[in-house]
Amino acid sequence: MVKNKKDTVVFFDTTLRDGEQSPGASMTFQEKLLVAQQLAAMNVDIIEAGFPISSTGDFESVKSIAKQVEGPVICGLCRANEKDITTCWNAIKYSKKPRIHTFIATSDLHIEKKLQKTRQQVFDMAVKAVKLAKSFCDDVEFSAEDASRSDVEYLCSVVEAVIEAGATTVNIPDTVGYSIPSEFGKLIATIKQNVKNIDKAVISVHCHNDLGLGVANSLAAIENGARQIECTINGIGERAGNAALEEIVMAIKTKPLFYPVSYNIKTKEIYKTSKLVSNLTGVVVQPNKAIVGINAFAHESGIHQDGMLKDKSTYEIMSPQDVGVPESMLVLGKHSGRHAFFKRLKDLGYKLEPNVMEDLFAKFKLLADKKKCIFDDDIDSLVEQGVSGVKEIYSVDYVNVTSGVGVIPTATIRLIKNLKNNKSEVLQEAACGAGPVDAAYRAVDKITGLKVDLTDYTLRAVSGGEDAQGEVNIKVKFEDAVYTGKGMSTDIVEASINAYVHAVNKIVVMQLGGKK
Amino acid sequence: MVKNKKDTVVFFDTTLRDGEQSPGASMTFQEKLLVAQQLAAMNVDIIEAGFPISSTGDFESVKSIAKQVEGPVICGLCRANEKDITTCWNAIKYSKKPRIHTFIATSDLHIEKKLQKTRQQVFDMAVKAVKLAKSFCDDVEFSAEDASRSDVEYLCSVVEAVIEAGATTVNIPDTVGYSIPSEFGKLIATIKQNVKNIDKAVISVHCHNDLGLGVANSLAAIENGARQIECTINGIGERAGNAALEEIVMAIKTKPLFYPVSYNIKTKEIYKTSKLVSNLTGVVVQPNKAIVGINAFAHESGIHQDGMLKDKSTYEIMSPQDVGVPESMLVLGKHSGRHAFFKRLKDLGYKLEPNVMEDLFAKFKLLADKKKCIFDDDIDSLVEQGVSGVKEIYSVDYVNVTSGVGVIPTATIRLIKNLKNNKSEVLQEAACGAGPVDAAYRAVDKITGLKVDLTDYTLRAVSGGEDAQGEVNIKVKFEDAVYTGKGMSTDIVEASINAYVHAVNKIVVMQLGGKK
Repeated sequence: MVKNKKDTVVFFDTTLRDGEQSPGASMTFQEKLLVAQQLAAMNVDIIEAGFPISSTGDFESVKSIAKQVEGPVICGLCRANEKDITTCWNAIKYSKKPRIHTFIATSDLHIEKKLQKTRQQVFDMAVKAVKLAKSFCDDVEFSAEDASRSDVEYLCSVVEAVIEAGATTVNIPDTVGYSIPSEFGKLIATIKQNVKNIDKAVISVHCHNDLGLGVANSLAAIENGARQIECTINGIGERAGNAALEEIVMAIKTKPLFYPVSYNIKTKEIYKTSKLVSNLTGVVVQPNKAIVGINAFAHESGIHQDGMLKDKSTYEIMSPQDVGVPESMLVLGKHSGRHAFFKRLKDLGYKLEPNVMEDLFAKFKLLADKKKCIFDDDIDSLVEQGVSGVKEIYSVDYVNVTSGVGVIPTATIRLIKNLKNNKSEVLQEAACGAGPVDAAYRAVDKITGLKVDLTDYTLRAVSGGEDAQGEVNIKVKFEDAVYTGKGMSTDIVEASINAYVHAVNKIVVMQLGGKK
Repeated sequence: MVKNKKDTVVFFDTTLRDGEQSPGASMTFQEKLLVAQQLAAMNVDIIEAGFPISSTGDFESVKSIAKQVEGPVICGLCRANEKDITTCWNAIKYSKKPRIHTFIATSDLHIEKKLQKTRQQVFDMAVKAVKLAKSFCDDVEFSAEDASRSDVEYLCSVVEAVIEAGATTVNIPDTVGYSIPSEFGKLIATIKQNVKNIDKAVISVHCHNDLGLGVANSLAAIENGARQIECTINGIGERAGNAALEEIVMAIKTKPLFYPVSYNIKTKEIYKTSKLVSNLTGVVVQPNKAIVGINAFAHESGIHQDGMLKDKSTYEIMSPQDVGVPESMLVLGKHSGRHAFFKRLKDLGYKLEPNVMEDLFAKFKLLADKKKCIFDDDIDSLVEQGVSGVKEIYSVDYVNVTSGVGVIPTATIRLIKNLKNNKSEVLQEAACGAGPVDAAYRAVDKITGLKVDLTDYTLRAVSGGEDAQGEVNIKVKFEDAVYTGKGMSTDIVEASINAYVHAVNKIVVMQLGGKK
């Protein structure tokens, strides 16, 4: 049990780094910035913005988050070598509160098989890396990768040495999600007891969810002295993902006697953050997901409903309002003007450039022509679409699709190709397919001449009402790279085409450098 | 730590009872039977088949599972009163291994607010209920609802009394998902120490997931002496759901030193069971769900992929084959004959009546005309559709849908209405809408004359390939009751129409008694 009641647990959000390692969850530059701004609005303590050495794109997005997002510490990940660390520093140095996070594996399995080194070599590399990082920056975190499968005595010696070298946070990851709460809690207690200079650093944990225990292991660590939790929104991340931020915060909030610690997270921002991340990454939240699933606060059985009517606390341990589930979502319609729309954008927490807002307003009016009620969900989707930042090389001008039973699905499509010199070209084609979407995609392929493979397709209804919009998320493969595309419309075929053209625009801009 | 290494933990699956309480997850009679058969194939120890008093439909499905599913104990739920218990017995008595599961709440909050009784009254009702149940059946389980928020001394006295009255299993539910592992483990240890006759019954736990700790609490209970785990496939259930069976089993399998207990579950059936339940209930499994999520075994980052190539154990603590993730899914095509199709059905574990198999073969041939490669996923979906058991009052005969950009979405539909005297009627209508699906639904509404509201719509790609099928799951509201519909096709508009007609057929059969 923790003695000091005033201890604060800091939340280190790695949605933009480990979370983005979820297969297919990659985000554009602008999308990452939007997530970082929302994490700041939720009062996350540290944002791990990316892994700068891993790609130019990652470097640039870490750099722009460091420049533009204020409030949280902005952290970059780097392996324990000079090039990684220097590159990391060059990306994060623009932040008012930069942190270098360097790591190396300490389990014999990783040391021998993956790194092909000795324990002593790894020990030396860790110390050297932290010293170098410290030369750039006061705030240095060291992670002992695969800590939960490391020899405890060796792990403690590495932790002691990196603190001596200047690390201010020492992270103990359960990299492969192999630990269980009783075991992991004990590991943290052992480190706290045996590392002599442990009071000079914050103990952090980073738990994966392979056995469904990421949250429980993080909480067991808090019970035993950890004061930084690395986690992601909706628990996304490598494989079965990371511990979910929202579940840990709400467990602490709901059980203060067991976790007598404070935290800085604004819980009312949780629901909005969850939806933003789910929408931008295309990683769905299952209905029965704790805290943020659509059923998390729904009571189905007659007995439960009866109990709820008599006294809410019979079946409810926290209120949906605590995590910001909106009570009413209806806001705007066809007759809403610019002022009302801008106010709603502001109320929803968006801080956008005037030209982006004007552009969104034009899209809002187009949508309102098709859809009677515009819900907050619709506005969120408009923003997410509007800020994805992909240049519209191709835009959809005309579509006619016929399909049915006893009908050969046929699509006729006209795209406008926007050329560099402010000129444009009109291109049209028709094609047949296995269904209207397949036919339309073939017609687009004929126009662009690109060989694009559709690998994943999901569609979900956004917002409510009979004329609810459909949001299509797709993944396509082009020359071994995967691209995501997103499209929205009250017409699912149109939404599907928009998603495909969105992905094609990404391919042209990102892979072909706009050459196509 | 458990002393007797030979202890077995029995798995009590409540997917068909608590799982079906997930909003919108209701299944038809035949769908429940299919799930029960798969649970038996996975070697679940106890199947909670339903809550017989809650509806005639539930009574009938519990009864048919009791009659037809062999292997597991078949259990029915009932409140602690004579009518519930008698009705429960009348449903489960056909099983070779019946169990009556009776419950009453023991927390002061529930006793006072919900039941409006005293502790003594609840104590007496519990004992009386168990005695009555025992007069029907040797195998009696008692649950102390909201046990984790009950006064421990009172809870122990109730547990002791119901064991005295004949209960062979005593269940300690964390009904509202309020407990945490250290606390819940201690509660189980207290019961084990303080209830004098506890060795005459099996201690069971039933953990909800509101704080994301359902699995961790169940495992903490095993560490402290619980030997029955109540859980569901994919963790579905009320609100944020129940502890997930697959996560608990795999934690025990992966960490034998910490959980030195044996179990009877065939883990290789986990993946198939998960998919079946997800497909039939329409409750999606998020990609980052532990064990059964599509990304659970996917390694995204370069560092992880490099490690995996050098030695799988660097980043993998269990193999996908352990839980039955198929390595290759390609099986059949246009030229596959009856024999090959029937063999594949058998290999996939289906035991079906000859007439159902013939019917599925005909549907398979139709599908093979449209789709080059038929994957196991496609066959699973065919079976799920084929056995839903809803009578086809209306069937789709002709569809022509036109939509696009600058086009008013229009649908022309012809349905065949199958009348009782083996005659049929041809009905056709056209309508416009916000998109092709909306237009088609309006046309169907015109034909049926029913006022049906679409409340939820999801579409996902089933199986792989360019001509992947789309599966549409919808929820509709008709006169305050919610119905689900499912449709499949390579054409998403056609799949959408099939789903709607499926739901309409349910309304006509289930609500209107075929009158419409």
